[in-house]
Amino acid sequence: MNVRVVLVAPRNPLNIGAAARAMSNFGVSELRLVNPYEVAFREAKSAVKAHAVLASAREFATLGEAVADCALVVGTTSKGHRALEHPLRRLEMGGRLIAKSKGPVALLFGSEKFGLSNEDMSYCHWLMRIPTRDEHGSMNLGQAVAVCLYEILRNPAAARAKPEPKRAAKAADLERLTELLEEVLEKSGYVHARVEGSTRMKIRRLIRRMDLNAHDAEVWMGMLRQVLWKLVS
Amino acid sequence: MNVRVVLVAPRNPLNIGAAARAMSNFGVSELRLVNPYEVAFREAKSAVKAHAVLASAREFATLGEAVADCALVVGTTSKGHRALEHPLRRLEMGGRLIAKSKGPVALLFGSEKFGLSNEDMSYCHWLMRIPTRDEHGSMNLGQAVAVCLYEILRNPAAARAKPEPKRAAKAADLERLTELLEEVLEKSGYVHARVEGSTRMKIRRLIRRMDLNAHDAEVWMGMLRQVLWKLVS
Repeated sequence: MNVRVVLVAPRNPLNIGAAARAMSNFGVSELRLVNPYEVAFREAKSAVKAHAVLASAREFATLGEAVADCALVVGTTSKGHRALEHPLRRLEMGGRLIAKSKGPVALLFGSEKFGLSNEDMSYCHWLMRIPTRDEHGSMNLGQAVAVCLYEILRNPAAARAKPEPKRAAKAADLERLTELLEEVLEKSGYVHARVEGSTRMKIRRLIRRMDLNAHDAEVWMGMLRQVLWKLVS
Repeated sequence: MNVRVVLVAPRNPLNIGAAARAMSNFGVSELRLVNPYEVAFREAKSAVKAHAVLASAREFATLGEAVADCALVVGTTSKGHRALEHPLRRLEMGGRLIAKSKGPVALLFGSEKFGLSNEDMSYCHWLMRIPTRDEHGSMNLGQAVAVCLYEILRNPAAARAKPEPKRAAKAADLERLTELLEEVLEKSGYVHARVEGSTRMKIRRLIRRMDLNAHDAEVWMGMLRQVLWKLVS
């Protein structure tokens, strides 16, 4: 994946570490820092399991230098309603475009307090917004990085994938189970006489609604056999 | 949205606060804590902009009580390859199913260190995994909550939405711009004589490739008129 995460003037070492961890989770390795507070950068080195990402992180004095080799520059913003000079896309759409991009993409995140400045945004081809609610739009920096990388790297096809088929119980097994349950209900006195047609149908439907797999049908047979044995002994 | 976020034995107050903030960002209000470390719960009260979520958070002694009113219980895990007793779905698919659920859904997150125990998982209808890479699967708790809620609440249709159409420059405006640029190039000596047919076509195509909107075409006209005025004065 050709994405470079660019943090502009980050203040909090925990956030730099969290961004690096999310990058490592999703397999994005290039972290770039523009004008970070010295202490933030240094203390972030201790972040959990993101050593490789942090060790290779590069520092730049200006945003222009940080994005110089990128073919697409995308800024993130929480401001959905402010009049922006740039095209603004929701993450669902923007993520798709970034994933399709052939060249290197710079994904910009502003400082925790102020976000990206108008000057920062002037380097961007377009802006992207995570669809948070209007009343509380601003996300934590590390969480915003995680959500953006997830969306860019997730597999849209996986949402349409069927779950692995379970081996369903066969009709014959379900019928044996139905008969066994009938017998248990008779012997226990839950039904007073031999089970009649309408009752049998109710029990049959009850068993089918359980949507049992082959293994669970076996387990139920074993449990009911034991119950029946106890009832008649 | 009917999702309750259930944190099982969380240790770190920063993570509880981060989970609450992500919930607030995405408009999910019900936070439930099972057996949290006392100090973690108390210190989390100071989290940024998530006061409402934290103030209404409920504490439970057992997981069974915490999920008692839920129609669907989903556990999160980073273990994609361990033999699990439960159906395991990727977040793209699981999020879709949760979003469609009619009844209340409990979304479980285990402790930072150990995740959900086998006993915790036994309360679950199925498990869900964020598609992180195999070598570094385990996410930060607050980031995992953010990514899951984003996926559940995002709008799949938004990924197919076309960006807002910009008012494109009309062909006549582009042709005027082409002629003006020709004149500038002649007067500046970039082309030596009157522009010929093949050169005119090159300039015309150059202008069309700029894919100008109406406003930017105006701006270019203004700039070139000024340049031309300077060249001939």
